[in-house]
Amino acid sequence: MGELRRDPTSNDWVVFSTDRAKRPQAPLQKTRCEELPPFDKSCPFCPGNESRTPPELYRHPVPNGNPDWLVRVVPNAFPALASTGTAQRTEEGRLFHRMDAFGAHEVVIETPSHNTPLALLDYGHIEQVMKSYLERYKALSRDRSLKYITIFKNQGLAAGTSLAHPHSQLVATPVASPAYRKYFEIAVDYYDDVGKCLYCDMLRQEKERGVRVVAEADNFLVFHPYASHSAYETWIAPLEHSASFGCIGPQHVPELAGVLKDALLAIRRGLDDPDFNLMFLTSTTDDEDDPYYHWHIRIVPRLTTLAGFELGSGMRINTMYPEDTAKMLRDLWRRES
Amino acid sequence: MGELRRDPTSNDWVVFSTDRAKRPQAPLQKTRCEELPPFDKSCPFCPGNESRTPPELYRHPVPNGNPDWLVRVVPNAFPALASTGTAQRTEEGRLFHRMDAFGAHEVVIETPSHNTPLALLDYGHIEQVMKSYLERYKALSRDRSLKYITIFKNQGLAAGTSLAHPHSQLVATPVASPAYRKYFEIAVDYYDDVGKCLYCDMLRQEKERGVRVVAEADNFLVFHPYASHSAYETWIAPLEHSASFGCIGPQHVPELAGVLKDALLAIRRGLDDPDFNLMFLTSTTDDEDDPYYHWHIRIVPRLTTLAGFELGSGMRINTMYPEDTAKMLRDLWRRES
Repeated sequence: MGELRRDPTSNDWVVFSTDRAKRPQAPLQKTRCEELPPFDKSCPFCPGNESRTPPELYRHPVPNGNPDWLVRVVPNAFPALASTGTAQRTEEGRLFHRMDAFGAHEVVIETPSHNTPLALLDYGHIEQVMKSYLERYKALSRDRSLKYITIFKNQGLAAGTSLAHPHSQLVATPVASPAYRKYFEIAVDYYDDVGKCLYCDMLRQEKERGVRVVAEADNFLVFHPYASHSAYETWIAPLEHSASFGCIGPQHVPELAGVLKDALLAIRRGLDDPDFNLMFLTSTTDDEDDPYYHWHIRIVPRLTTLAGFELGSGMRINTMYPEDTAKMLRDLWRRES
Repeated sequence: MGELRRDPTSNDWVVFSTDRAKRPQAPLQKTRCEELPPFDKSCPFCPGNESRTPPELYRHPVPNGNPDWLVRVVPNAFPALASTGTAQRTEEGRLFHRMDAFGAHEVVIETPSHNTPLALLDYGHIEQVMKSYLERYKALSRDRSLKYITIFKNQGLAAGTSLAHPHSQLVATPVASPAYRKYFEIAVDYYDDVGKCLYCDMLRQEKERGVRVVAEADNFLVFHPYASHSAYETWIAPLEHSASFGCIGPQHVPELAGVLKDALLAIRRGLDDPDFNLMFLTSTTDDEDDPYYHWHIRIVPRLTTLAGFELGSGMRINTMYPEDTAKMLRDLWRRES
């Protein structure tokens, strides 16, 4: 007998059905970054091709006067949103509202190496990737008409990537994301009822129970949520309340880079290098000091395809319980591969 | 310059970016039903293998005393939800709510032919598929603890199918779907403000403008919504108000089967037989007589992969405007292929 569990952050019910893992399934398309060459002269993100990207927004150089770079951020050459236009809304009657696709869409080139995935960069290098996210988040959030900044990474075809060279993206929109709006309303209701942040309460309870905890650092908890939407969905959340990734203290960035690398490595070992999405869930730029929302990272291995049931109902079917997947990753945490 | 448009049924903003269609993209996995053999002796849905499915729930026979069948409905052999258990909820503190995965999960085997996709069945046969949906919907809705029934079809690997033989599915859950809950609240607000069904108003306006209309039948409108979530997303909605597919008059089923076939054929011609999801969006079984929600069918060709931006933000990026895609399908409507 399976179970329905309610995600306390969205109030959505998730179907847990371990039987469903037994059904025949076509294998997903899969790509292995390391099977690519270390350098691809046709790749716009490879060193030497810097002129093929739009003008650079940020660079972390190789130390000691070396002219090469470790991390670059450039505008997306095929942007979903553009810096021209305005955040002005127009309405055609009550039903139809529109505005310019005003915003920003940037690419973080995580490494000069064409075939080194994020998980295999060293700790200090991942710290520089995190710092580039933070720098660009802060730069974009200075434009007060940009309300929401999504930081994400798509690794592999099943995760929707279109370029193999390891990279992540920032998208800034002049409106709050629908996902955030829903989480925010639920967190405000909880705060009104209980007087505390829903996520702070959840983190405290998860720490106490321990069964869904993958790892604990001084300032971050790595865990699989009670009603995880898909198998091995992994959250990394700061233990101290903070609504926005943009407000992270610089002293916490190295620790965050460390738990992120260790989490990616454990997933890689446990699931044979799956395609995955990595997403920063954070508040709007307007809500950064609020007591309601609580930023966190989600890593979602793409092991199944979202189908008609999920798209039509908004419900998810998860074939593994988070207690089981958390135990597995806990056992793999920081083991040598 | 692209555009942000707000979906009036969900209040979600959708990013329209035609530039984004120009980016390099890996081709999606693709399957063509007709390249399969007409009969596969290892397929549990092929004729002669009836004993390999759980006991039949519904059958439409070949007419005139022929012992063969045109459509069969059987329980899913790998169900996400089961008829054992109860709809009783239990709570562990304020955060963690659970219940048994109580419900139903059925498979509609649309045709004995292993390689004839739904679009290529004849009109009368598709009418029988629709009737099987309706019969099973009504049978399931008699259990008052089942609150929501999702009818859907996944065609092709990119749409998440696990078995090639043409089939659709019904899933009944003891809770309203999150998608419906959101649509419902917005529709109730609209009704409170305007005194009319949001969808009835939208259909009237779409008919008047015509630019997003693909086809019009006596009782159904086929159109591409103002803020369609993905390219060529096609809605088929009854012109007269009705909250639930379960309340469709039997006299309207042949017309619905007709416009569904014609819509699937136009999409097939226009997009070279894409993988797609087909979903019935309908009210909970409790809300069938309500003036708020308005049932409809959505056909969503799976031309791109949902990636980190979409999963993290809940926003969608659409590379084609519905005015352009509607015109294209309008031009292909009922043309011979």
